[in-house]
Amino acid sequence: MTYYIVVPGDYGPRERMITSTALLIRERGARATSLDAILAHSGAPRGSIYHHFPGGREQLLREATAFAGEYVARRLRGNDGDDPLAVIDRLVGEYRANLLATDFRAGCPVVAVAVESAEDGPDLRDQVVGAFERWRQLLARRFVAAGIKTDRSGELALLAIAAFEGALILSRAYRDLTPLETIRREIHELVRAELAVTEEAAP
Amino acid sequence: MTYYIVVPGDYGPRERMITSTALLIRERGARATSLDAILAHSGAPRGSIYHHFPGGREQLLREATAFAGEYVARRLRGNDGDDPLAVIDRLVGEYRANLLATDFRAGCPVVAVAVESAEDGPDLRDQVVGAFERWRQLLARRFVAAGIKTDRSGELALLAIAAFEGALILSRAYRDLTPLETIRREIHELVRAELAVTEEAAP
Repeated sequence: MTYYIVVPGDYGPRERMITSTALLIRERGARATSLDAILAHSGAPRGSIYHHFPGGREQLLREATAFAGEYVARRLRGNDGDDPLAVIDRLVGEYRANLLATDFRAGCPVVAVAVESAEDGPDLRDQVVGAFERWRQLLARRFVAAGIKTDRSGELALLAIAAFEGALILSRAYRDLTPLETIRREIHELVRAELAVTEEAAP
Repeated sequence: MTYYIVVPGDYGPRERMITSTALLIRERGARATSLDAILAHSGAPRGSIYHHFPGGREQLLREATAFAGEYVARRLRGNDGDDPLAVIDRLVGEYRANLLATDFRAGCPVVAVAVESAEDGPDLRDQVVGAFERWRQLLARRFVAAGIKTDRSGELALLAIAAFEGALILSRAYRDLTPLETIRREIHELVRAELAVTEEAAP
């Protein structure tokens, strides 16, 4: 058996397997993402799976979901002064680029796991909820920082995440960017309207 | 081999198999919905599959997607005078009831097929797009009938379908009705605001 030493920052077989799992899930769903497919995609040797992931496929799915959660979170995080509209554009722009680069095959891995997870263990569901909730909170924080009230920021963030995920599914199915572009504009409008209300109410 | 005569209105094995497929897909996804599971769920005899569905599992998935598309379409269709807000409440209310009745296991079968369909044939994708597009058009027609401009109605309907599907995924994962309830209120607000604009602009 070959052993690999994984050091922080090292893009070793462990990281490659997690990335491959997320990339496969976003195209074909979790159920169809077999260990064989992950090995073939990552180029990792078979013996390395249980070395790096003693929990096997279930652990790989969990870590890939966490990876995808962090991937989106990075796009939503930022500095307090960041324009919330620019943050939304960054997220939508990233997924628009992914759709175009994959001939409309790439959706959101977290949604794919969520849709199939009724049969899966609670740990995997926790990862899914953790990712959605983290995105919602990061986006809400952007809205609060821009001056929108806390409660309203939470609602708007929830709507934005729901509409984004729904539109990504539609754009992928239609093979057309219109759904994503439409919800991007609608969320812009809603946030702008809310900011205008906030400014009117300012002393 | 046992043969069944399926007459219109007869809830025979053919219909039972299609319904079972849709019910299984909405909980576990398309990939995990095997012919064995469909037979067990519907109680149909094994020999009846290829009698009723010469195209096998792929045909069953297609017909179940079409069935789910029609199921939602019935909730969105109505009379021209119907309040568009009541139509949205009917749809959300139906899925809220489904979530509660299944301990948050039941999502949307069309979304489940859409998320996993990158690997599937174009016929299945056509059914998915057909369902989404039909819902969008039915909802847009409600908005137009209520007095909202055609272009704006189309955008609002797209946002509503995307937000509804996204929120259904979130509510199911969170095991909490808040996401569905939040988007219901947000869509109400948007439609009301649009109707107010329409009334102001009326001669």
